[in-house]
Amino acid sequence: MSNALQVSIVKITEDAVRTMPDLLAVEEPLEIRLAYGGIETGQRHPLSGEPVLGKMQNLAVTMRTPGHDADLAVGFLFTEGIIAGAEDVKVVEHVFLPCSENRQNTILVTLKEGSIPNLRQAERNFYTTSSCGVCGKASIQAIRTVSPFGTRTLAAERKIEPAFILGLPDRLAREQRVFAETGGLHAAALFDLNGSPLLVREDVGRHNAVDKLIGAAMMKGRLPLAQTVLLLSGRASFELVQKAAMAAIPVIAAVGAPSSLAVSLAEEFGTTLIGFLRNNRFNIYSGAHRVNTPLPENATLVKHPL
Amino acid sequence: MSNALQVSIVKITEDAVRTMPDLLAVEEPLEIRLAYGGIETGQRHPLSGEPVLGKMQNLAVTMRTPGHDADLAVGFLFTEGIIAGAEDVKVVEHVFLPCSENRQNTILVTLKEGSIPNLRQAERNFYTTSSCGVCGKASIQAIRTVSPFGTRTLAAERKIEPAFILGLPDRLAREQRVFAETGGLHAAALFDLNGSPLLVREDVGRHNAVDKLIGAAMMKGRLPLAQTVLLLSGRASFELVQKAAMAAIPVIAAVGAPSSLAVSLAEEFGTTLIGFLRNNRFNIYSGAHRVNTPLPENATLVKHPL
Repeated sequence: MSNALQVSIVKITEDAVRTMPDLLAVEEPLEIRLAYGGIETGQRHPLSGEPVLGKMQNLAVTMRTPGHDADLAVGFLFTEGIIAGAEDVKVVEHVFLPCSENRQNTILVTLKEGSIPNLRQAERNFYTTSSCGVCGKASIQAIRTVSPFGTRTLAAERKIEPAFILGLPDRLAREQRVFAETGGLHAAALFDLNGSPLLVREDVGRHNAVDKLIGAAMMKGRLPLAQTVLLLSGRASFELVQKAAMAAIPVIAAVGAPSSLAVSLAEEFGTTLIGFLRNNRFNIYSGAHRVNTPLPENATLVKHPL
Repeated sequence: MSNALQVSIVKITEDAVRTMPDLLAVEEPLEIRLAYGGIETGQRHPLSGEPVLGKMQNLAVTMRTPGHDADLAVGFLFTEGIIAGAEDVKVVEHVFLPCSENRQNTILVTLKEGSIPNLRQAERNFYTTSSCGVCGKASIQAIRTVSPFGTRTLAAERKIEPAFILGLPDRLAREQRVFAETGGLHAAALFDLNGSPLLVREDVGRHNAVDKLIGAAMMKGRLPLAQTVLLLSGRASFELVQKAAMAAIPVIAAVGAPSSLAVSLAEEFGTTLIGFLRNNRFNIYSGAHRVNTPLPENATLVKHPL
């Protein structure tokens, strides 16, 4: 599997038409399956001798760029609150199904004996069925309930210099080869407070890039990510702020715009949220106290619908 | 409800730090509920006199920009293959749930008597549970089964001039007010073959922008959209090509990059897929025969993983 595919295209400009090769970012479905309760353990019933079967279920299908699928699967399970950390994971493997063209597009996460996935949490996140419907409050409550770190660990109390933040996009560009080739991938990059890149992940889906990154950090035993900055190549949505908070990331810097709900959620969590980080400038939408500026410590969200 | 929210931010450039107002694209959850089988009809059992209750269920929660919620809901139901067209829809309305902050975030689509939603289709699209997992073939098969127009109606056999396509982004920019203000919205715009804009919809989610647009066209009785061009402000994914095919749109032009699966699907459907439409140039990834160029008629997808 590769994350770029060469195709032949017709390129049209104002004064020329020609055929030429081009590179596409690969997008393929990944089905994430979860097994728990002993399905892989070979346990047998002590009296009958029959195999004790656990449960296996399909959790989600995501359209992703192949590569780092195991990181994506465990990162997804963690940021959605379904597992509590690397200690729940026994093995992650592609499963080969009886379908000729689909060999790498199903991944099975088998939990350790005794690890019970919080599937009620998954249901709550995917579709809320309460009489209240879904609203910001409910979502915030849901993530607060399950984050193993809470928001207490949103540390990084050392002030960050503006010049440090301004330099992040150039650092990312050096790491992001496929994006440069295809123009079609989102990137998520994690830096420590000295500006060293810790991890970079790319995907056609921006939520997948973050899940891959958090999943990789988790399996390396690096959670909580309390002394890091998460750089996003695109926009900052509610979902991305939520995922970052699950890993206790205190600072998010996005090259694109944040949404209103991303800012609200960042304020609730105390996350520092930076947007429009490009062309040697950026905006701070929440948590300005972590950035070394001569201004008052908090940028207040003034809710004022137009 | 508005689709922009004013906030106060800290703006940092190389030589200045100041607080100032800024506009954010609004992102809010929308829960889509479906009622069918007479729940809203007030029917009573002919013998007992009891109300005959139909079924109501929560179908999906999407993070969207408020506005055109009814278009979004019916467009989603149509492009996911759950309803066959406007003739299935009796009424679409926001429902007011007992939650103070959430008054506009649940929408109920009530189907006409006798209209039965294809919820098996929805399940197939959202999570595939077959032993095959999910793969491109399965997805393509699924959409072919349910599109009321098939791919026969992918007409627009009149050749399109390159100059026409090159002019579309400027036309879109004139229609896209909120994006200009916030930098945070995706747009989908529909043009006829004379270049007249038929519909424009914006959203923080690009799939929502397309659902709003197709939903609006459907409720105006304009499907199939066989003589139109769909312009996308961002990238072209598999999902967007799939949705456009449901409405029989023959030409998709994206300002950003297409993914590999978007190109594969466009080739399967015979859709003309254009990408990187900006700076007075564009690339044709499939269906080049609809564009008036002196080149051979088909740009062939050469599958050549790197």
